[in-house]
Amino acid sequence: MRPVAPPSPQTRSAASERQKSLTKPAGSLGRLEEIGEWISACQDQCPPHALVRPRVVVFAGDHGVAAHGVSAYPTEVTIQMVANIAAGGAAVNALAAVAGATVRVVDIAVDSDTDTTISRYKVRRSSGSIDREDALSESEVRAAIEAGRTIADEEIDSGADLLIAGDMGIGNTTPATTLIAVLTDTEPVAAVGRGTGVDDAGWIRKTAAIRDAMRRARPVVKDSVALLRVAGGADLAAMAGFLAQAAHRRTPVILDGLVVTAAALVAEESARGAREWWIAGHRSSEPAHSIALRHLRIEPLLELDMRLGEGSGALTALPLVHAAIAALKDMSTFADAGVSNRASNPEAPSEA
Amino acid sequence: MRPVAPPSPQTRSAASERQKSLTKPAGSLGRLEEIGEWISACQDQCPPHALVRPRVVVFAGDHGVAAHGVSAYPTEVTIQMVANIAAGGAAVNALAAVAGATVRVVDIAVDSDTDTTISRYKVRRSSGSIDREDALSESEVRAAIEAGRTIADEEIDSGADLLIAGDMGIGNTTPATTLIAVLTDTEPVAAVGRGTGVDDAGWIRKTAAIRDAMRRARPVVKDSVALLRVAGGADLAAMAGFLAQAAHRRTPVILDGLVVTAAALVAEESARGAREWWIAGHRSSEPAHSIALRHLRIEPLLELDMRLGEGSGALTALPLVHAAIAALKDMSTFADAGVSNRASNPEAPSEA
Repeated sequence: MRPVAPPSPQTRSAASERQKSLTKPAGSLGRLEEIGEWISACQDQCPPHALVRPRVVVFAGDHGVAAHGVSAYPTEVTIQMVANIAAGGAAVNALAAVAGATVRVVDIAVDSDTDTTISRYKVRRSSGSIDREDALSESEVRAAIEAGRTIADEEIDSGADLLIAGDMGIGNTTPATTLIAVLTDTEPVAAVGRGTGVDDAGWIRKTAAIRDAMRRARPVVKDSVALLRVAGGADLAAMAGFLAQAAHRRTPVILDGLVVTAAALVAEESARGAREWWIAGHRSSEPAHSIALRHLRIEPLLELDMRLGEGSGALTALPLVHAAIAALKDMSTFADAGVSNRASNPEAPSEA
Repeated sequence: MRPVAPPSPQTRSAASERQKSLTKPAGSLGRLEEIGEWISACQDQCPPHALVRPRVVVFAGDHGVAAHGVSAYPTEVTIQMVANIAAGGAAVNALAAVAGATVRVVDIAVDSDTDTTISRYKVRRSSGSIDREDALSESEVRAAIEAGRTIADEEIDSGADLLIAGDMGIGNTTPATTLIAVLTDTEPVAAVGRGTGVDDAGWIRKTAAIRDAMRRARPVVKDSVALLRVAGGADLAAMAGFLAQAAHRRTPVILDGLVVTAAALVAEESARGAREWWIAGHRSSEPAHSIALRHLRIEPLLELDMRLGEGSGALTALPLVHAAIAALKDMSTFADAGVSNRASNPEAPSEA
């Protein structure tokens, strides 16, 4: 991977100037104004155009470590949920429909056979159990990253103007937490959360697995590809490739929760500057998610105690991007609407 | 006004049970699950139906105190912005369009003449300057409250299934802050914010005006109608009537920022239990807003440093209500989708 050019600073400035001309007190839409300026800069267009094809790609994969009691759910749930997403019955589908987005699910490393429409980029059946073995071989990690890049290209070439990565895979918060903890030099106990709701005994098993995986990962922490191979997984490697490629292709992304943000952290390590193309939809209740966001210096939009994955947090924030665009694009200016601006008040002069 | 019956506890329980049957870890949609259960209880229907006609009513009014330099904007902006809203060019219009809501603006006490379609419920031209005189006469405050109730009835009878009150009026954060400070026994300096962006000298004038108004208001703090008459205004009285009546008519409301929440605080004083029909869209950057929300024991959904009014904060949160409904209504159950629930994992038994 290689460094990434930022969204247009000139267009961002133009958008910021436009905000000041709209019929509202300066800055009064708060973070909606920032988002509007960011999307304008990403599109290199001021005012920005309404999003036409926001697209979610859910990366599904199993993890060997799930067989060792780190999750509240049995591993067969991954393939069942892939079918549920494909049939339109999961949270990601319901949330996408009301937010004006569409959903694609891809099998990167599910531990069962799936339909060829879903498994075109499948790397293997389940990634290795990272507490005791590498997640992937050298050729597999390369294939997985390349799969993610290709999927990003396909979606952007089909008109996607905003991308969301989602995750589906029982046990996937274990490699995600490992990647974040090792990249941010965090103790396992400070990073490990309950995932989908594991009990105390499961939390202890999960923490031990992450401690063991971190020991295996530390020697390769400076090498993103090796890190994904040793302590990540095919789904995480594909997401990292997808997120980096979206930035290279100048396409804005809303990050989801723990698993996607772990992949983002790895992607930013090798594709420096990619983070400028991302906003964070929400702060999940998983502690490692906040650690990763702080490291990326991205402040999330929502804080709703969500912890579902699949892209659900990003989709819940997508309407804020629609709102930010609409305000910047559709509001009247002071001049057009014949509204007096603050400078015209003789009794309360404008600051500076 | 009179006490208000709560949303259906039985339907809320049914919605909470339904959440547990949907294909997601229990509780993993966080506050979206709460909102889904609340709207289900308001509708007395599980699953809830999608909102058909969310409706914003912007209550416009001037305030005598605005002539004394408490705002960054001249008073003529109120009438200009009423025209801007009626023409569809304000923030409330842009945000409503993307959130699937429609907007009505009503002139309750604008200090100019407006079109009869807007001024049908007009009480007077501008409310009095509350630092030195009553905002309204006895008959005016009654007329304003009644106007708000009637408007709520009209909207609900026309099919509105969720209501938002918005505010428009230069100087209106001065009476709003006064009402909140006096009802919550807060010192003016702890409550007074910058409104639309007043400078330091203006902030000092505003704080002094609020201190004087609070002195006039304290003797009537136990009498909501008298409080609105002495230290509120016609727009605030109409909003209070509107919010109370929405609750009596079993119609859910998303509260907006400082001004609307001040009216809500007064409404809850006399129509006890109305708060159960309200959620708060956002936390504004005005300090008195947080004070009022804490007093109402309502935790806002968004925290985006917004401070625009007009209903903009509530509209920014409206998509979260759409999302909450969609998840509860449209997701598959574990049984329907053939997905294993956590109880079926022998290695990680479900927590009790």
